Amino acid sequence: MSLMYCHERNLAVSPQGGNTGMVGGSTPVFDEIIVSTALMNQIVSFHNVSGVLVCQAGCVLEELSRYVEERGFVVPLDLGAKGSCHIGGNVATNAGGLRFLRYGSLRGTVLGLEVVLADGTILNCLTSLRKDNTGYDLKQLFIGSEGTLGVITAVSILCPPKPSAVNVAFLGCPGFAEVLQTFCTCRGMLGEILSAFEFMDAECMKLVGLHLRLACPVQESPFYVLIETSGSRAGHDAEKLSGFLEQVLGSGLVTDGTLATDQRRIKMLWALRERITEALSRDGYVYKYDLSLPLDRLYDLVSDLRARLGLHAKHVVGYGHLGDGNLHLNVTAEAFSPSLLGTLEPYVYEWTARQRGSVSAEHGLGFKKKDVLGYSKPPEALQLMQQLKALLDPKGILNPYKTLPTRT
Amino acid sequence: MSLMYCHERNLAVSPQGGNTGMVGGSTPVFDEIIVSTALMNQIVSFHNVSGVLVCQAGCVLEELSRYVEERGFVVPLDLGAKGSCHIGGNVATNAGGLRFLRYGSLRGTVLGLEVVLADGTILNCLTSLRKDNTGYDLKQLFIGSEGTLGVITAVSILCPPKPSAVNVAFLGCPGFAEVLQTFCTCRGMLGEILSAFEFMDAECMKLVGLHLRLACPVQESPFYVLIETSGSRAGHDAEKLSGFLEQVLGSGLVTDGTLATDQRRIKMLWALRERITEALSRDGYVYKYDLSLPLDRLYDLVSDLRARLGLHAKHVVGYGHLGDGNLHLNVTAEAFSPSLLGTLEPYVYEWTARQRGSVSAEHGLGFKKKDVLGYSKPPEALQLMQQLKALLDPKGILNPYKTLPTRT
Repeated sequence: MSLMYCHERNLAVSPQGGNTGMVGGSTPVFDEIIVSTALMNQIVSFHNVSGVLVCQAGCVLEELSRYVEERGFVVPLDLGAKGSCHIGGNVATNAGGLRFLRYGSLRGTVLGLEVVLADGTILNCLTSLRKDNTGYDLKQLFIGSEGTLGVITAVSILCPPKPSAVNVAFLGCPGFAEVLQTFCTCRGMLGEILSAFEFMDAECMKLVGLHLRLACPVQESPFYVLIETSGSRAGHDAEKLSGFLEQVLGSGLVTDGTLATDQRRIKMLWALRERITEALSRDGYVYKYDLSLPLDRLYDLVSDLRARLGLHAKHVVGYGHLGDGNLHLNVTAEAFSPSLLGTLEPYVYEWTARQRGSVSAEHGLGFKKKDVLGYSKPPEALQLMQQLKALLDPKGILNPYKTLPTRT
Repeated sequence: MSLMYCHERNLAVSPQGGNTGMVGGSTPVFDEIIVSTALMNQIVSFHNVSGVLVCQAGCVLEELSRYVEERGFVVPLDLGAKGSCHIGGNVATNAGGLRFLRYGSLRGTVLGLEVVLADGTILNCLTSLRKDNTGYDLKQLFIGSEGTLGVITAVSILCPPKPSAVNVAFLGCPGFAEVLQTFCTCRGMLGEILSAFEFMDAECMKLVGLHLRLACPVQESPFYVLIETSGSRAGHDAEKLSGFLEQVLGSGLVTDGTLATDQRRIKMLWALRERITEALSRDGYVYKYDLSLPLDRLYDLVSDLRARLGLHAKHVVGYGHLGDGNLHLNVTAEAFSPSLLGTLEPYVYEWTARQRGSVSAEHGLGFKKKDVLGYSKPPEALQLMQQLKALLDPKGILNPYKTLPTRT
């Protein structure tokens, strides 16, 4: 008998997927028993000066967000699935999401964990300290291990102060080179207030228009960029942003743009980016890839695949967290087809490996992608991972058949 | 025979200590052989858009700083020993330092490592990607493991853009409660430009005056605070800072203050804080403690010890990275005395454990503090650490006698 645990409320977002469409964690593959943490939903403590939140693993991200925002802080993690995903699952999958650019990885913001090990031992490393160099940092083993090394039962996380001013700019760019240059310009001119730099291509915009009836807020362009700023003084942020817009519009890096400062319009602009997954799922069967690539080659794979697939695919789209080097590459077709899959894989993985990229930037490996690990990690790393799994879960009862390749 | 490696140039800063006074890594305790990485001092690559620096382990931190600053970036780590410490040792000890408040832990900014394992295997996880969720994040095992699990030979690290405006304010506060309130006020009003919040008590100021002839730049006060801002627009930063100063001076949280915007004066103010260690070492034998404590109890231990030690100590001083909850507690005496040590220990560790603090915030455990690990970590954690050590270094040849308690 084996255990598989489920950090979710509605059985639709898995610890494997962590954020958007990579479901499956709630469904046993063979003989697993699902453990739900949904009733472990208590906030243990929140400290008003340090911003440290301690809570049980089953707390829903959006509810935690609301709780700390009422107290002048934000959770350093935000993602599309916030309404249903659990913080325990977020940590178990090392979720990235929309605030990564500003607040960095959970490996830096998670301060402590309580974990139940395979033999039932409760490992209490639920510290609330920003700094603790006493021995090995054991919590790191469980962050991103997708439930295969232990069951996270409580989390301590550092919440940054809530920014008092948030602005969003939505821009059209004539090419991908201009998207990259806009990123460099913006990092220089917006500096410390830049909190998101997302991009989507014209195909994405077409799909959100077609399936969700969302209107493009700027002139039609080959690429679109969403920039968010978060700062402590509205006037200063507006001045920085207008200087930046003047610069990029004047130099032709951006052909058209719109700016939102009120909550309603900010949400509307974010929806164009956040609802791409939904639009894709309405377009047909979706082949999904979540890749880390060097910035200057990031979009080449999309163009390459579009040419390679021709009429075999309905749409080939590229979007994602450009500021983090993270491309979401999605291909839609009328239905699943083994031949289309054969054209995509291992081609996409080999292409990514040649650029020394990651075949799973933020979604993890789970069941479906466990055998592609070797494209991003050398055999020595794989061997050490297997040794860690054997050490922590000698009987293989924790989320079996996941993350690590099948031993042959 | 056992190996002990040494990330340093002048044999004065150890991988165990990581930054300031915790030397010893360059000195064999019993039968170790020292491995120096000093000749592995090449920069492998630097990417101008992403800011990712890849270099060998023996690069000196200050030289790396200079290199990336010429290209418009900064290393996310800075500490007093920057002129001699090696980046490999910084990572091996998970060094904290002066930029921690702004750029966070090395666990978030180190992107990849190359490590030689105990059996000679080269583990190449030297990726340059911000996001990579393919399997377990093995590099985390080696960050902060003080050379006991593997020898770090190369590092990939994300460098943030260099701020164009830096300001430093040096303030006098009438009490520790006011120091804490100044911190809260400053975090709210300076927000994203706050890059350091350091404090020192009157005893520290007395010692830097006495031994180094540094003059106090403000009215004598029970506490002093050094605030640094780093931003992308000088005018905006100056406006935020003057608004903040008006507020804290007006409300009596701060009794006197001075502001520096030019490089020379900024260095002068930083010297008051950075050279405390030097002043202490000229005062006599120094008992050093590097603790993480809850902010509201942070200074209580200093007052408590002062009363407890009375005339047995020359000076009892408290200073440190307040913004990170990190207290450096130092006690000086004419010479080492077992009875004074007996009064200090285990008292300091027990006091810290009662507050659920850390007995080593950023300095690590090394040889001298390995047996106090149990004050900050439960037996289950200790057992797992021993298992990890046995897995990665079954013969115990890597930096032996360090970090983990002697098995009894």
